[in-house]
Amino acid sequence: MNKTVGFIGLGVMGNSMAAHILEAGYPVLVYTRTKQKAEEILNKGAVWQETVKDLSEKADIIITMVGYPSDVEEIYLGENGILRHAKEGAFVIDMTTSKPSLAKKIAEKAKEKSIHALDAPVSGGDIGARNGTLAIMAGGEKEAFEACLPLFSVMGENIQYQGPAGSGQHTKMCNQIAIAAGMVGVAEAMAYAEKSGLNPEQVLKSITTGAAGSWSLSNLAPRMLKGDFAPGFYVKHFIKDMGIALEEAELMGEEMPGLALAKSLYDKLSAQGEENSGTQSIYKLWVK
Amino acid sequence: MNKTVGFIGLGVMGNSMAAHILEAGYPVLVYTRTKQKAEEILNKGAVWQETVKDLSEKADIIITMVGYPSDVEEIYLGENGILRHAKEGAFVIDMTTSKPSLAKKIAEKAKEKSIHALDAPVSGGDIGARNGTLAIMAGGEKEAFEACLPLFSVMGENIQYQGPAGSGQHTKMCNQIAIAAGMVGVAEAMAYAEKSGLNPEQVLKSITTGAAGSWSLSNLAPRMLKGDFAPGFYVKHFIKDMGIALEEAELMGEEMPGLALAKSLYDKLSAQGEENSGTQSIYKLWVK
Repeated sequence: MNKTVGFIGLGVMGNSMAAHILEAGYPVLVYTRTKQKAEEILNKGAVWQETVKDLSEKADIIITMVGYPSDVEEIYLGENGILRHAKEGAFVIDMTTSKPSLAKKIAEKAKEKSIHALDAPVSGGDIGARNGTLAIMAGGEKEAFEACLPLFSVMGENIQYQGPAGSGQHTKMCNQIAIAAGMVGVAEAMAYAEKSGLNPEQVLKSITTGAAGSWSLSNLAPRMLKGDFAPGFYVKHFIKDMGIALEEAELMGEEMPGLALAKSLYDKLSAQGEENSGTQSIYKLWVK
Repeated sequence: MNKTVGFIGLGVMGNSMAAHILEAGYPVLVYTRTKQKAEEILNKGAVWQETVKDLSEKADIIITMVGYPSDVEEIYLGENGILRHAKEGAFVIDMTTSKPSLAKKIAEKAKEKSIHALDAPVSGGDIGARNGTLAIMAGGEKEAFEACLPLFSVMGENIQYQGPAGSGQHTKMCNQIAIAAGMVGVAEAMAYAEKSGLNPEQVLKSITTGAAGSWSLSNLAPRMLKGDFAPGFYVKHFIKDMGIALEEAELMGEEMPGLALAKSLYDKLSAQGEENSGTQSIYKLWVK
């Protein structure tokens, strides 16, 4: 019989991920701060839990997909949190993009209670979550990772074990760092195209297939040019991620001037009221 | 009968490009500063010219692929240069990455002498040149572009007309701008992976296929990790290109902080003796 999965956090990503688990035949218990967001998944057969505590006491595997490290900390380590109430031998998987140091702390506390903890953030956005094609980068004990692989396979395609607790989060930081300065380059290239009197769409035909090519250039530059700033990935979440990466880099004694520049530009953008826009809205710093 | 093509500048790129033209059946005249570099192409049947003047007087189409804007200026506008000696009705095509403003100036002077000028820089590097798969981004009069299309097709695959004189160079600047900040992001991501104790090769398996994916991440990050800093594209040439782009951006009144940061990091790298290394050597600023 399939193990019971408890899913906490039903935003755009969480809803799609939980639906895949349900469709794969697992019994699914759900909890999220705003019950309304659970409506769809409850209609599909998930069972509502009134508290994190209730869910934790019943589930064999608990997945969290929430907003900020502070949420992760409260849900795992708080008075009514997961580690206090989960069953011995349970698996707990944080798929939120969160702090590597927090992931390590959770893993240590979990171990004391014979609970197996993994940090397994994802990339691929709402579309990847909907299509079950997320990239999943996991940290924790290898045996725990392998035990959870069937469940990961339901949600993602590129599933990689990256090392001990915190390694999933560190890997996600690498992902965000590569994106950060890259977005600045894409926006500047498009601004230059526009200001120099070129046809930016025509420019994209020349530059997307070669050495300047990137996911951002192919997928986000066209949205910049069309003035489509709807969120695939929110400015506010990107700022959170870059903040974590900068903190961690500082702990390592590393300077990250590209990352620092990108964060400062996104902070400026957010201050202009774009925190709920998509990351491609950085283009507005050049072209209104 | 095929028109006679004069090719000036036989570096790594020029040699491959001229060879494709020769193989396509055009008579090819060549000139380059260091005659030794012409040896291979002369063995294949190209005909040596002692001066730019000699070549210009005989060729129907003249292609230049030299180093710096100062070289372009001298070769086109100098006393013994192309525009002074080329035949009426000739086509002259500068494929060097050079200044948009210089391309415009050349086009104007050419027009006065009933010579058709195009600026048509390329991307795709030594491999693209060798395989005849360059991206060619062209500026100038549309009719001249169309007349030269069969010749472009011999050297490249993604051939795009971008607008009036200077538009090819402007498009190439967009290409370099997108690469510039992107390289910083790739190097920082790899440095973070290394310093946080991850296995960077394993990290690449997680992040190259998603939203962080780019040509640089797929092709240059593995070289960074292997310590392979051999030039695909020289640091010194990238610095030249970024310098042109920054100058042009300033003329437009645009700030390009990502580009400026990338250039300052590459300047630093160059000062450390890496000017003849490949652009992936930027990694050395983080990991020795």
